[in-house]
Amino acid sequence: MSKVITPRSEDPTRWYTDVVIRSELADYSPVKGCMVIRPLGYAIWERIQGHLDARFKETGHQNAYFPLFIPEGFLHKEKAHVEGFSPELAVVTIGGGKELEERLVVRPTSETIMYSMFARWIRSHRDLPLLLNQWCNVVRWEMRTRLFLRTTEFLWQEGHTAHATEAEAEEETLAILQVYARFAEEQMAIPVLRGVKTDQEKFAGALRTYSMEALMQDGKALQMGTSHNLGQNFSRVFDVKFQTPQGGMEFVWQTSWGVSTRLVGALVMAHGDDQGLILPPALAPTQVVIVPIWKTDEEKTSVREAAVALEASLRSLVRIRLDLREEVSPGFKFNDWELKGVPLRLELGPRDLMKRQAMAVSRLDRQKELVPLEAAQERVPALLVQVQRRLYERALKFRSDNTHPVSEYSEFRERLEKDGGLYEASWCGNHACEARIKEETKATIRCIPLEDTEARGPCLVCGSGGKVRVYLARAY
Amino acid sequence: MSKVITPRSEDPTRWYTDVVIRSELADYSPVKGCMVIRPLGYAIWERIQGHLDARFKETGHQNAYFPLFIPEGFLHKEKAHVEGFSPELAVVTIGGGKELEERLVVRPTSETIMYSMFARWIRSHRDLPLLLNQWCNVVRWEMRTRLFLRTTEFLWQEGHTAHATEAEAEEETLAILQVYARFAEEQMAIPVLRGVKTDQEKFAGALRTYSMEALMQDGKALQMGTSHNLGQNFSRVFDVKFQTPQGGMEFVWQTSWGVSTRLVGALVMAHGDDQGLILPPALAPTQVVIVPIWKTDEEKTSVREAAVALEASLRSLVRIRLDLREEVSPGFKFNDWELKGVPLRLELGPRDLMKRQAMAVSRLDRQKELVPLEAAQERVPALLVQVQRRLYERALKFRSDNTHPVSEYSEFRERLEKDGGLYEASWCGNHACEARIKEETKATIRCIPLEDTEARGPCLVCGSGGKVRVYLARAY
Repeated sequence: MSKVITPRSEDPTRWYTDVVIRSELADYSPVKGCMVIRPLGYAIWERIQGHLDARFKETGHQNAYFPLFIPEGFLHKEKAHVEGFSPELAVVTIGGGKELEERLVVRPTSETIMYSMFARWIRSHRDLPLLLNQWCNVVRWEMRTRLFLRTTEFLWQEGHTAHATEAEAEEETLAILQVYARFAEEQMAIPVLRGVKTDQEKFAGALRTYSMEALMQDGKALQMGTSHNLGQNFSRVFDVKFQTPQGGMEFVWQTSWGVSTRLVGALVMAHGDDQGLILPPALAPTQVVIVPIWKTDEEKTSVREAAVALEASLRSLVRIRLDLREEVSPGFKFNDWELKGVPLRLELGPRDLMKRQAMAVSRLDRQKELVPLEAAQERVPALLVQVQRRLYERALKFRSDNTHPVSEYSEFRERLEKDGGLYEASWCGNHACEARIKEETKATIRCIPLEDTEARGPCLVCGSGGKVRVYLARAY
Repeated sequence: MSKVITPRSEDPTRWYTDVVIRSELADYSPVKGCMVIRPLGYAIWERIQGHLDARFKETGHQNAYFPLFIPEGFLHKEKAHVEGFSPELAVVTIGGGKELEERLVVRPTSETIMYSMFARWIRSHRDLPLLLNQWCNVVRWEMRTRLFLRTTEFLWQEGHTAHATEAEAEEETLAILQVYARFAEEQMAIPVLRGVKTDQEKFAGALRTYSMEALMQDGKALQMGTSHNLGQNFSRVFDVKFQTPQGGMEFVWQTSWGVSTRLVGALVMAHGDDQGLILPPALAPTQVVIVPIWKTDEEKTSVREAAVALEASLRSLVRIRLDLREEVSPGFKFNDWELKGVPLRLELGPRDLMKRQAMAVSRLDRQKELVPLEAAQERVPALLVQVQRRLYERALKFRSDNTHPVSEYSEFRERLEKDGGLYEASWCGNHACEARIKEETKATIRCIPLEDTEARGPCLVCGSGGKVRVYLARAY
């Protein structure tokens, strides 16, 4: 089965598609640019939702739901916003058999429709902060799509908040970035850079965009989530005002932030190998699979029985499956569950049974360990914790091996072309240099890191005074 | 605050809208026919989702996600289906700034897009049954909308399954109807009739549609959920075939079923009163609110402290809130939480505190009970169970008081006009009689009950031989 996956070394793009399709994470649909998320992919998304939703609620946010359709005129109210999204819109022009008087845009993001409601609801400082989140689908008409990473329709959450002060909005923007980054590192086992986008790369309509950026195994960067400080840009155009305790009227300070089903693609890209997916235990819908092995009918009876007992003893502790299929061989099952990324496999054969043990095999690197059946309830969860940690460590080592400080522009160009990867450099802050990098190398400034922001030397491009430290990479 | 709700006796339609808007369940949006589901409404929907999703998963269903857009041609493949949905479609004709070659319909339901994928995935009897469910938004262009009950966009779940035999599909259709009906009765506290729709009223493309029907307080019926046996209607047109164990090729047998955010409207309609919402404890986001009462600063200190302790002692047992607002009076708080439907209120004043007790007031009928603070952990959850039961009993009594057996058509017409309500009658099975009822009375056959199906007399309309027993009512 694994031979249907193109080796990554041969063609990373085909490798990615093969893994997504063959593992049954998702499938192409008959609608251009839209995909079908199959049960395995959706179950991972549900785990992502579950974790993040709990964090949002702990920090005082409430879920709500706003319309899919946005009157076209709304988007035009914020100039930068409409310029950013106009080329990507899907437009409904017919409803109930009739041409519509005002055309409706299928939401590419919901700032405009939400804030028109905020203007109705917010009256006084007592109504602030307003902390809302929405889980929904959005549509951005994309020319070149890739399963999960860039699709015309995708699922996401979008948080939208309104505050009484600029400082509170900035605090919220950064707090959410930390929620996202901790989730990426602790649950997804993917180390991320926390930083701020340049003005050129920020969200259309934002004052400042923060993002978390990760390095994928093919040497490209992936923006995994963004948190925008919108300032008063939208509250001014949608007239979202509140009465201060002193009686004056002020515009609210706003934030918006989101992560999407792109994160499922990140898991494939960051951890997968030529055998298929490798899922972090924290997010794997199935964490452990038991594959019983037998030859004779007699062996079958006793091995089955022991496997059923083992599964029963672990069921309340880990998300486990017992593969009792008879029409396929144990070898086929090994490949099948490796393809689907199950972090830990327990093999149980007649000899193991005699010794009252099972062989635990880690999906990550096939590291093996004999687990006494009596100790399984203790050892199996511990092995999962270990796999989660080792997966993160491997990803961190990969990133550090592929992050290169550069001070010479020519050296940067050559090395980027040859090796890909992430580059640490100094930048003068001028857009001309940023534009030149993009034009000549297709790399972009991924972010200005939140910590250690200061430049360490002159600008990589123009050689004049460096202002900030930046990370550069080609990206999805 | 409650005086802003129009009394139901005065104008049931305005009463409903007032309750929904004032309790902050939902709000009108700037997009015709689309509403905004506010945090309270969405939190109820999340509880509905949580309960049903667990039942679906327990019975072997998996969640997936299919595209929002459906190529227009797909809908035309099943004749009855396209006839049923054509008048209600929203159509995307422009994408990424260009006119589309094939227009895309915003899904009104997903049979066609899903089954085009089923045809790819299903090969053998081993791939069956395929049991999928999707939580999503759908769009049906409606002329006359009502918050939650009928909106252009709504949220729902749609289950779609494929089976090897007709019997299995029928079993699934009925099993899901039971899941829905038990949910309605046990969680929503709304008694429902389980029945089958007449051919005239069935889903566009189904062989048979089962539904659950409830009687609302204004004497109209509400269809709360449907479960369709699709037979091979769709598998034939989408060519969804499987190889049988014997090697032959057969079309699969299919079902689809759904409930929507309409259920939130049903809760309002079935239980609410002139003070606002009444939520069943099983689904109430907040089950209990503590309202402390004080006059002097000294009282405030001790009452607050006791209220905080009471809330802490109950927090792990019930979904509880402590209302410590100082800018409003206890009376205002009583009204506010009654408006929002919180099932149980605990009032705690200085005199109560001296006696180490709190006053529990049921939202249902303001029935009061003194609860010793020491017994609160036991008594408060028990009171919630009691409220849930009494709410159901009240709704059941209302239905039985408003269900009338009729055998004379003229009597039926007069009484329906005067009292509304549900009518039990016999029907000959001919469409002519069904059509006459609808034309002359605006009532429809809500369903032929699953049990006691046989007619008890001649047809209500034509007086010829009755074939089946039916329930009639005007409906939403």
